[in-house]
Amino acid sequence: AQEDPDDGQSLVFADLTPAELAQVVRYLQGHLGLRLVDAARANPSDNCIASVELQVPAKAEALRFLDGAGARPPREALAVLYFGDQPDPNVTEYVVGPLPTPAYHRDVTVRRYGGKVPYHRRPVTGKEYMDINALIQRELRKAPRFLAACCESDGTDLTTLTTAPRGFKSGDRATWFVLFHSVAGSGYYLSPVGLEVLVDHRDLRVSRWQLRHVFYNGQYFVSMADLEEAFVANLLEVVRVQKPRAEAVLGSMRPRHQPSSPGPLQYEPQGPRYSVRGNRVTFQGWSITFGMNPNSGPRLFDIRYRGERIVYELSLQEALALYGSNCPGGMSTRYLDGSFGIGRFAYELVRGLDCPYTATYVDQHYLVESDTPKTNQNSLCIFEHDAALPLRRHFSDSQSFYYGGLRKTTLVIRAISTLINYDYIWDFMFHASGAVEVRVHATGYISTSFLHGQGTDYGSRVGPHTLGTMHLHHMHYKVDLDVDGQLNSLETQDMGYKVMKEPWSMQNTIERLYLRRKRLEREDEAAFQFNAPMPRYLSFVSPNPNKWGHPRGYRIQIISFAGDPLPTSSPMERAISWGRYQLAVTRRKEEEPSSTSIYNQNDPWTPTVAFADFINNETITNEDLVAWISVGFLHVPHAEDIPNTVTVGNGVGFFLRPYNYFDEDPSVDSPDSIYFSSE
Amino acid sequence: AQEDPDDGQSLVFADLTPAELAQVVRYLQGHLGLRLVDAARANPSDNCIASVELQVPAKAEALRFLDGAGARPPREALAVLYFGDQPDPNVTEYVVGPLPTPAYHRDVTVRRYGGKVPYHRRPVTGKEYMDINALIQRELRKAPRFLAACCESDGTDLTTLTTAPRGFKSGDRATWFVLFHSVAGSGYYLSPVGLEVLVDHRDLRVSRWQLRHVFYNGQYFVSMADLEEAFVANLLEVVRVQKPRAEAVLGSMRPRHQPSSPGPLQYEPQGPRYSVRGNRVTFQGWSITFGMNPNSGPRLFDIRYRGERIVYELSLQEALALYGSNCPGGMSTRYLDGSFGIGRFAYELVRGLDCPYTATYVDQHYLVESDTPKTNQNSLCIFEHDAALPLRRHFSDSQSFYYGGLRKTTLVIRAISTLINYDYIWDFMFHASGAVEVRVHATGYISTSFLHGQGTDYGSRVGPHTLGTMHLHHMHYKVDLDVDGQLNSLETQDMGYKVMKEPWSMQNTIERLYLRRKRLEREDEAAFQFNAPMPRYLSFVSPNPNKWGHPRGYRIQIISFAGDPLPTSSPMERAISWGRYQLAVTRRKEEEPSSTSIYNQNDPWTPTVAFADFINNETITNEDLVAWISVGFLHVPHAEDIPNTVTVGNGVGFFLRPYNYFDEDPSVDSPDSIYFSSE
Ligand SMILES: [Ca+2]
Ligand SMILES: [Ca+2]
Ligand SMILES: [Ca+2]
Ligand SMILES: [Ca+2]
Ligand SMILES: [Cu+2]
Ligand SMILES: [Cu+2]
Repeated sequence: AQEDPDDGQSLVFADLTPAELAQVVRYLQGHLGLRLVDAARANPSDNCIASVELQVPAKAEALRFLDGAGARPPREALAVLYFGDQPDPNVTEYVVGPLPTPAYHRDVTVRRYGGKVPYHRRPVTGKEYMDINALIQRELRKAPRFLAACCESDGTDLTTLTTAPRGFKSGDRATWFVLFHSVAGSGYYLSPVGLEVLVDHRDLRVSRWQLRHVFYNGQYFVSMADLEEAFVANLLEVVRVQKPRAEAVLGSMRPRHQPSSPGPLQYEPQGPRYSVRGNRVTFQGWSITFGMNPNSGPRLFDIRYRGERIVYELSLQEALALYGSNCPGGMSTRYLDGSFGIGRFAYELVRGLDCPYTATYVDQHYLVESDTPKTNQNSLCIFEHDAALPLRRHFSDSQSFYYGGLRKTTLVIRAISTLINYDYIWDFMFHASGAVEVRVHATGYISTSFLHGQGTDYGSRVGPHTLGTMHLHHMHYKVDLDVDGQLNSLETQDMGYKVMKEPWSMQNTIERLYLRRKRLEREDEAAFQFNAPMPRYLSFVSPNPNKWGHPRGYRIQIISFAGDPLPTSSPMERAISWGRYQLAVTRRKEEEPSSTSIYNQNDPWTPTVAFADFINNETITNEDLVAWISVGFLHVPHAEDIPNTVTVGNGVGFFLRPYNYFDEDPSVDSPDSIYFSSE
Repeated sequence: AQEDPDDGQSLVFADLTPAELAQVVRYLQGHLGLRLVDAARANPSDNCIASVELQVPAKAEALRFLDGAGARPPREALAVLYFGDQPDPNVTEYVVGPLPTPAYHRDVTVRRYGGKVPYHRRPVTGKEYMDINALIQRELRKAPRFLAACCESDGTDLTTLTTAPRGFKSGDRATWFVLFHSVAGSGYYLSPVGLEVLVDHRDLRVSRWQLRHVFYNGQYFVSMADLEEAFVANLLEVVRVQKPRAEAVLGSMRPRHQPSSPGPLQYEPQGPRYSVRGNRVTFQGWSITFGMNPNSGPRLFDIRYRGERIVYELSLQEALALYGSNCPGGMSTRYLDGSFGIGRFAYELVRGLDCPYTATYVDQHYLVESDTPKTNQNSLCIFEHDAALPLRRHFSDSQSFYYGGLRKTTLVIRAISTLINYDYIWDFMFHASGAVEVRVHATGYISTSFLHGQGTDYGSRVGPHTLGTMHLHHMHYKVDLDVDGQLNSLETQDMGYKVMKEPWSMQNTIERLYLRRKRLEREDEAAFQFNAPMPRYLSFVSPNPNKWGHPRGYRIQIISFAGDPLPTSSPMERAISWGRYQLAVTRRKEEEPSSTSIYNQNDPWTPTVAFADFINNETITNEDLVAWISVGFLHVPHAEDIPNTVTVGNGVGFFLRPYNYFDEDPSVDSPDSIYFSSE
């Protein structure tokens, strides 16, 4: 069972094709009986299709099909509609099927969320940002003298950066926008001019939107006119910021030197050793189904090794960036990137830099805020990598002379999401030892504030007027391990010392290292808050033993440097309550498909999904369990974050490692094994 | 100053050449006025040369030479002599110089250790092990019927494994030896037969050594005859262990399958981009001097980037493996590998597996327990590695379309030490971002005990009679950072939340993330015990600011999963008191060259060097400071540790990252930078 017998079975997890997406759009346009405006042009007071994506089949149904005699589950789509043109504006989610020729649609909103989704929770669309920008441009015209003085600008060459959340209570939709000098071909994120504006865009009529507050260089104003007046009256301390000149843009990535001889490159002497068929890759006993959710990003299904499923679902859930600053935009910012779209912003990968030249590149399709499917070409890559490290080796010249070893070559599945300024590199790696490694590296431009006052209490100065603002990166993963079947328990191991007499003469004292093994029986015990001690070993175990009598298991090993999560006293904390736990193990529920929601960003005060509610002390012995893992790090920017944060030292993630799952290390079967001896 | 102007200056740190080693031996043989026996043949009651190695020049002297007009320091050796043939047997250390033609030798023992080094502290030599083995073989002959029954053996096919320490108080030299079936061409470490013997080899007359205790399968006996008697009287529960058969040896690394197509390989299109001259390597602004201490292992000196020294010394100090078991050998074991010889056991590297084919391989020479120098050919490798990851990248399609990035190619310096069963892979990596990465991976054979009774309270069963015993790996590094000069301070940063009114309307509450910066003024504050909270950012900073006003610094970022160190109540804890601290920053002292001593293993109860004494609350502001870093992990073996522990998930280490040291990321100057835009 080394090779994968998949005959298109993995297609149950396949993202919708452009044709399928188009079919669903056509179906909705024809069957909802409502006027639908293309989301690319829709006003808040219109109805539109916000997104269409795969409705992943229920696990039970999928498994019946994959493992048994069950029928192929019907192929369905999940469509999100913004209904602004209704008496009670709301967001509605429909399951539409069966594809390729839809015949039904079911409103699943209440079933999924326990109630209707109020309209104010919807993400901000591109069209909404355009309308806000138009408002800001109009407002800027009210302070021409100020702008000329502060920024050598008439406003038109200033660019805005959104922040989020957008207020302090449910229903609020008032966003601080930070203004930057726009810089062609480089990250404007490093060139704040000191001006920030609070726009209230809650009203469904764009014409009623208003600018509520203005911030400049440490001072607050109620309007641009007010600011202009203060300037003209000489009551304003203006910091004159030069327009970035092409020659010396802070953060330019243009090479300063001619390319020299090329660095080392990988080649595959006899071509790739993995194979990609549709949405499934196979490699040395591994088979993995991959996909990309437009919102939550990369996800894998049905990860099997040697024919046995180890993980049913491994999916990114959310990426949080939480900032500190003495400017209002920065201090308010808690980006929930899933609501912006981690998957849809996973753009084309640059061959030879983002992934090796020899990698296999796969297109991803999505339908978001448009009636037409879009494609991110070559936006997921797959390759085998030479880690230039032994996976295992031993050299002996005592007793007998021999050497055995195996190179560490790893299958990597990668996508890179650019979320405005930041780039997250999502890696999923598969080792010859049966281990899965999940890693995220952060790179791209840092977000910045205008440096004023005690700014350096919130980061480092990284440019003439630029404060690199401190922030937390927290990412959340769902790992539905199914170890040797669906029924698993959680076993922990840790160490202790026992002080006792040595047993041979009983005359001396010895500190004996020993093992503490434990089964965690309930969800509350298995939810490990940050800064609380966590056992060094945590494994999903099966009821079945390996050859040596130990329960077959997979160990979860986390590598994270996370910062403290938001205090639970915060009124928005429940929206990111997954961030409380480094690891939480819950019973798998079809009704708990993800730890967050795209609606959490704009109404975190009444979270549509509150992960903490999943942890309700249910028993977790011999159940279908899910591990929810959060990783992250505190990032206090420094000069070397210019132009871009480097990946060195900025990677976090986790391993899933076989732990008495096998009877020996499966890599002994690798045909790459090397051995020689003096015999 | 990108390129290194080194004209053989780095040779002040060069390990002694075979010719130099031979010169020192000849000089000692001619000038000590004592009968010296070749250590390979010497009895405890003889005098012998235990080792000769480079005496590293004092830092002040070396820096005067490297940086100023100072003369080249005289080249000197450090010779360790075991004086067993003296009225007061002792270990004496001499500095011998100047090379190549020695003219003087100075006894530095008292200066280095504050007193004479008692003879009983000396490491056990190969000859001593041979004599012990002969004793054990003689003893085994006293239990022929037992051995035939338990082990299908007459004793001659059993192999011993030493443990350490060797007793419970200063002066003790009584070692538990664990017996294994010897296995040709594979690790016998996995085949314990259940028999262990305690040999007292304290007396300088080998003839007086004695077997003190015998352990078999959970029971203790005072002699082999006693054991035999119990067996014959049928009072012994014997577990019949078959002799390993060639076809099915537990832990065999012989490939089971024909090689298939080769995996990805690296090539260098225009050859290597680094250059190695003698003991110095240069690469893209980096220059590093490397060497290998026969005891403590790999070490680097004078690490410079762009001509500026960042680290004066980066050296491994010690590797500890501390075991738990219900067998006496295992439960007693606290190996201090430095006393066995981390450097001398760094053997030849296998091209294409231990390092890439294209790597540069360097020989290392040493003189230990012999009058003749030995060479470990190709035992250190240097290569540039394609990490197949961007070092940095950003893709933009908002505002303007552009892409900038840089591949992560890394210079790696590697050695691999085989310490009996275990193999440690020592990596030192140098990045285009100015960061140094230090990493150790563990592989090789686990150490095991015979499975009996409640054995699985100490690990996992991994074979028919084999218990993979739990243990801690702890490694200690000395990092003498000199950041922008020798005078540095230690700055920490961490985060907090402040709950306050938002400043624009003062109507809502906001949790503001902010930075806590601190200078640690004294050694006691800068000694971070395990499990005590450690600030997330710790940097060595210079008094001088970068362009943006922040003190130029390098950050220390540790990646470790260490287990709890031995309780301080243990009478041997002071010998490994470096293990208390994840990080300790002390004032650099010429008299505190290392955190441990090769004499600590055999007399840990009166440690020759006790690291904890370095921490005596001296001020550490604007001083020459050293960071002492310990990393490690708890290893509870499992079936997949057979045949060998894999490196996946078993790597720990640390980064040294520029932190406001530069004015921007130095990688912007890399000729490998890529940029394109739509302009
Ligand atoms: Ca639950
Ligand atoms: Ca599960
Ligand atoms: Ca001190
Ligand atoms: Ca220093
Ligand atoms: Cu960041
Ligand atoms: Cu280990």
